[in-house]
Amino acid sequence: SIHELSLKLEMLEKGGFDHFMLKEIYEQPRSIKDCMRGRIYANEGKVQLGGIKDYTEKLKNADRIIIIACGTSWHAGLVGEYLIEEYARVPVEVEYASEFRYRNPIISEKDIVVAISQSGETADTMAAIELAKEKGATIFGICNVVGSSIPRITHAGVYTHAGPEIGVASTKAFTAQVSVLTLMALYIAQQRGTINQAEMVNMLTELDEIPSLVEKCLKTDEKIRVISEKLKDSTNCLFLGRGSGFPVALEGALKLKEISYIHAEGYPAAEMKHGPIALIDEDMPVIFIATKNSSYEKVISNIQEVKARKGKVIAIVTEGDKEVKKMADYIIEIPDTNEAYLPLLATIPLQLLAYNIAVMRGCNVDQPRNLAKSVTVE
Amino acid sequence: SIHELSLKLEMLEKGGFDHFMLKEIYEQPRSIKDCMRGRIYANEGKVQLGGIKDYTEKLKNADRIIIIACGTSWHAGLVGEYLIEEYARVPVEVEYASEFRYRNPIISEKDIVVAISQSGETADTMAAIELAKEKGATIFGICNVVGSSIPRITHAGVYTHAGPEIGVASTKAFTAQVSVLTLMALYIAQQRGTINQAEMVNMLTELDEIPSLVEKCLKTDEKIRVISEKLKDSTNCLFLGRGSGFPVALEGALKLKEISYIHAEGYPAAEMKHGPIALIDEDMPVIFIATKNSSYEKVISNIQEVKARKGKVIAIVTEGDKEVKKMADYIIEIPDTNEAYLPLLATIPLQLLAYNIAVMRGCNVDQPRNLAKSVTVE
Repeated sequence: SIHELSLKLEMLEKGGFDHFMLKEIYEQPRSIKDCMRGRIYANEGKVQLGGIKDYTEKLKNADRIIIIACGTSWHAGLVGEYLIEEYARVPVEVEYASEFRYRNPIISEKDIVVAISQSGETADTMAAIELAKEKGATIFGICNVVGSSIPRITHAGVYTHAGPEIGVASTKAFTAQVSVLTLMALYIAQQRGTINQAEMVNMLTELDEIPSLVEKCLKTDEKIRVISEKLKDSTNCLFLGRGSGFPVALEGALKLKEISYIHAEGYPAAEMKHGPIALIDEDMPVIFIATKNSSYEKVISNIQEVKARKGKVIAIVTEGDKEVKKMADYIIEIPDTNEAYLPLLATIPLQLLAYNIAVMRGCNVDQPRNLAKSVTVE
Repeated sequence: SIHELSLKLEMLEKGGFDHFMLKEIYEQPRSIKDCMRGRIYANEGKVQLGGIKDYTEKLKNADRIIIIACGTSWHAGLVGEYLIEEYARVPVEVEYASEFRYRNPIISEKDIVVAISQSGETADTMAAIELAKEKGATIFGICNVVGSSIPRITHAGVYTHAGPEIGVASTKAFTAQVSVLTLMALYIAQQRGTINQAEMVNMLTELDEIPSLVEKCLKTDEKIRVISEKLKDSTNCLFLGRGSGFPVALEGALKLKEISYIHAEGYPAAEMKHGPIALIDEDMPVIFIATKNSSYEKVISNIQEVKARKGKVIAIVTEGDKEVKKMADYIIEIPDTNEAYLPLLATIPLQLLAYNIAVMRGCNVDQPRNLAKSVTVE
């Protein structure tokens, strides 16, 4: 009806932002909050996921979880692997949907398959789901578009509730997917007792803070514009991270590829010595996820290696960091948080970096060349 | 003694080749044969792997196999994953050693860990082995250097017998690692009965042919020099494949990175639509693994997508291919073989491509900047 239509148009507006992508980046404090609403009870140390609660026993006893996805959703899946393995102690495999479906995969009734797709219409992911279903697996969906195809063909699922995403390069849908996977990791951990109650209260209290910390991450925009000015004429770029910072690096590189057409590549930082370091010279900017966490010291030595080869280093660091500051050409500070939630914060400046560089290069940010919002063909 | 030393010097000579790397590329028909010698009995349809035979029961009953490695060895591991899952039907996970060791990995006494390292001294891989050992896993090594550290700290293993590799960019050690993993996949398949005897006879008969087919692959050198001339001034390059052609693409990209300093990246071909396709224009050469196998038709449609965006396509195809020939700018023909052995053949022209481009760019092929032969520090 008319009322619905005008509401829709209003929702689709850019709301004062130059591009949908920027609007969606700035929506993240709210979209992450929306995603967590009604799902965490910090005081009680309890996570509730209504969509999958009928499968709690199955999840609790799972021998392994297989995550299937494409593109940005696949990166969210890699973050999920780190979180679920670390906190719930269940082995996770993350597969490209396109590879999974053509591979006669080893899947049985005991397996839980988690399919991730913003649109809920990704062709390869849907085909992979059908295949896993035939083999008797239990399938969960993590989708954004309510009522789309994937939620209809899965056994159960958790919506990301990020609201409509118009920019072709996914931003708020990614952080919402990561939010759901974080909740799922904690939910399984709670069921399996791999995190004790006191710890869970702490973790959920910190998780509750994330939307306001994301808000703080958005304040890096001004500094990022200065850095973007320096990087905008680069033809290449490397993104490096360790642990859950590795998928964040992959996602940062993908954003830059998608909208600025700069050839950016993500790598686990320690792998640099096994090849990519040969690319490093004064023309190669390297973006590091170098926040204060368990791999901090190791990342610092990787930064030194890059600086020794005259590479330009831009580092995402924890507020107040002094060590990286001495070495890096530019630092971008983000708030301190539990290591588990690092991906939710570290992603934000990388989105802003890709956005600003693309705008400075005069690229069509919301509709990058050659790309479609949802890949509904194989 | 003097005798040993002169023998060593002789062995280390380049034997008429301009570089050790080229010599080692050309040694592959022999090094692969050396690797398979005494291990396959085609007529009887039998694979024998002395080094791990005491663990046959364990392998037969394995719930999963975890492969840990770095760099090129990690790519060999990905090929191993395809082969072991496809033929032996055991789930395989491939981990970066550097990530595995810092991750509190979920490992138990039931698990089999396969560590791959040419030198047998890779620091991250050794640390990962020690960690897995502490957790009670059974560890196999796949190494080239006899008597190196990794074979001494693993429970059992299979040597690659490729002979000393001097070029920093690994070539014959990679194909030997893939050969061992191929044998291992068939060995486990034989024990588990997932391949019947008649099929096994066929597969081993075809495997016996591989060294002479690799010889044929080397004959592409002249054509590859023509193609290299066209690509040598590129700043970027994509390598795409599906199935086991995906790790081959990753390895092809890594070779080009390492010795020519061109920013090359490997991707599963189907993922292109989820981002990297935005990079495609007339300046972006795309190398496809497009041999006649189960994903042939899908790869063809990926090639069409690249051509529609004016990308330059170089395709590795099966001898006599007509369809890809019509679309690609250049094709490189390799002999037909069982799909299982595709990585052993398709890798060869990619090694030659990287080598020729690097030479034309005036790069120090055997000692690329910033890289060490074995990464014995973290």
